[in-house]
Amino acid sequence: MSRASRFLHACRREPVDCTPIWFMRQAGRYMPEYRAIREKYSLLDMIRTPALAAEVTLQPVQAFDVDAAILFADILPILGCLGLDLDFVPNRGPVLANPIRDRRDIPTSAVVPVGDVVGTTLDAVAMVKKELAGTVPLIGFSGAPFTLACYAIEGGSSKDYLRAKTFMYREPEAWHRLMAVLVDCVSEYLVGQAEQGADALQIFDSWAGCLGPQDYETFVLPYSARVVAAAKATGVPVIHFATDTAGMLPLMRRLNSDVVGVDWRTNLAEAWDILGHEVAVQGNLDPALLLADRETGQRGASRILDGVQGRPGHIFNLGHGIHKQTDPEIVRDLVQFVHEHSSKKGIP
Amino acid sequence: MSRASRFLHACRREPVDCTPIWFMRQAGRYMPEYRAIREKYSLLDMIRTPALAAEVTLQPVQAFDVDAAILFADILPILGCLGLDLDFVPNRGPVLANPIRDRRDIPTSAVVPVGDVVGTTLDAVAMVKKELAGTVPLIGFSGAPFTLACYAIEGGSSKDYLRAKTFMYREPEAWHRLMAVLVDCVSEYLVGQAEQGADALQIFDSWAGCLGPQDYETFVLPYSARVVAAAKATGVPVIHFATDTAGMLPLMRRLNSDVVGVDWRTNLAEAWDILGHEVAVQGNLDPALLLADRETGQRGASRILDGVQGRPGHIFNLGHGIHKQTDPEIVRDLVQFVHEHSSKKGIP
Repeated sequence: MSRASRFLHACRREPVDCTPIWFMRQAGRYMPEYRAIREKYSLLDMIRTPALAAEVTLQPVQAFDVDAAILFADILPILGCLGLDLDFVPNRGPVLANPIRDRRDIPTSAVVPVGDVVGTTLDAVAMVKKELAGTVPLIGFSGAPFTLACYAIEGGSSKDYLRAKTFMYREPEAWHRLMAVLVDCVSEYLVGQAEQGADALQIFDSWAGCLGPQDYETFVLPYSARVVAAAKATGVPVIHFATDTAGMLPLMRRLNSDVVGVDWRTNLAEAWDILGHEVAVQGNLDPALLLADRETGQRGASRILDGVQGRPGHIFNLGHGIHKQTDPEIVRDLVQFVHEHSSKKGIP
Repeated sequence: MSRASRFLHACRREPVDCTPIWFMRQAGRYMPEYRAIREKYSLLDMIRTPALAAEVTLQPVQAFDVDAAILFADILPILGCLGLDLDFVPNRGPVLANPIRDRRDIPTSAVVPVGDVVGTTLDAVAMVKKELAGTVPLIGFSGAPFTLACYAIEGGSSKDYLRAKTFMYREPEAWHRLMAVLVDCVSEYLVGQAEQGADALQIFDSWAGCLGPQDYETFVLPYSARVVAAAKATGVPVIHFATDTAGMLPLMRRLNSDVVGVDWRTNLAEAWDILGHEVAVQGNLDPALLLADRETGQRGASRILDGVQGRPGHIFNLGHGIHKQTDPEIVRDLVQFVHEHSSKKGIP
């Protein structure tokens, strides 16, 4: 078995020779090769130029023995379908010039076609697939409707998303309309990525953990479940990842994704017990552990691997995106360590 | 039964006539009475002037039918015991001028006596107790060693506490020395508050949830448990509160506090089942629910009250501090609603 197939087998909970590993945000600022390109282009240019997006997508696949590539892209451009203008402002992050502040700002359907908004990203998928030439599978992705709705209403990042949550509580009908539109856009985007050759699809709901379980169930779950269903209908495995959701794992399971991504704030084996073993899991090393030294990260990794005891259906990953301060040498060594440690444990 | 005793009975899991309620950060910017004082004085002046601290502590007790007062103070001044100079900078928050950046910055014991650093806060406790004249109990509090250590190393607030966590991983011996010193300072501070008349003590570990369970167990739990033990030795009930810890409730229980505060990211009844019913619980309404309208907050409150079904040992609170945008009228109505709804449920 090679890294061409290990990840996809694990997504389907089939036995593998060793635990597959990839990193959220693996194409990023911790890599000197990435920074060399980033110095020359803006983030939006990199995202919207297929050749550049393809190049940085391939960098970690070439540098490390990771078992999957993940498309270099951002979750926010898709908000262009709602007529929202995105920019990345230095030292401030993403900013939407015209956020949703009123129920009347919400259209009943996309005002700009998905193809017009993220067509270059779909082109990048096709380009990466060709260049990968089957060495590793390619993961496409999208933000989940809730996280996108938060950005759309806040107009950018936020500490506690109070503006978005207040809107959700005060204007439930408008909220549900917004979520329905986002389901359509996100679903079409994900299906488009699968059509261009993405071998798996991950849905990121980075901010879902700012809600209590009851509100998640009422205002979010039905929409994310529709996105998962649309993505699964393409036939590729679907991963759902959210953070700060240790208190609502049973709700995560109800999304019906093939794989549940788990952040580092919970014991992975215990989380898997709660989720049930008829789903695969992905995670969940605290990315901060990689900032110390190689032994600290490897000690954490072996605890995770030993905890799940070689059960088929574990994809190793961090519990969140890799930090920009991470030493690439430690990343390289961790990949090797995870492969060796998990194969020694005699996984069939 | 009156609000003089309801809260303390609930801390001890004794039957009450209705569920007691108070709010984290109940003396704060959402109250016009508070803002009127805050306009005239700096935050540090308010904290360090017993008459001012006492006055704002009493404001919510006078304005609402809450069942406890909580001392107006801040968790950070105690870091003066380590020689750290605190200031609150407008639009930036707390800043420590001389943070810990090296193991050699960590003393083996307090360099400034607790009484010299927070003596005025201990005086405020005595003053509040006198002015309360037994109407409601007074809760004293301190930050937990971990959250204080994070601030000490970061020099202020942080998004992910990477500097503190990296220090912890790289310099475990220095970390353990820092935590041991903080245990001594915090314990003495809490005992001092009880001696001045505090009727209960709450320990805030606001940032504990940035760690995975294993790291919490290794680097934090033993120290917080020592603080809890020292506080309990005074004879008053001890509440431990942390956020983002839904994935490590069994570890929270091992701290052995009388009451476990739970944030809003988990179902309170389910959390109580995991904690075990031999401990009291406090929480856990999402404070954002109070920003919508009175019905939204009350619906959330009734779900929580109905979920725990009148089991003795529930103290109603928010799952985090009250937001500054909250309408005081909604706070007043929620207090009444919680009292009425819980008494209707026929709690003995």
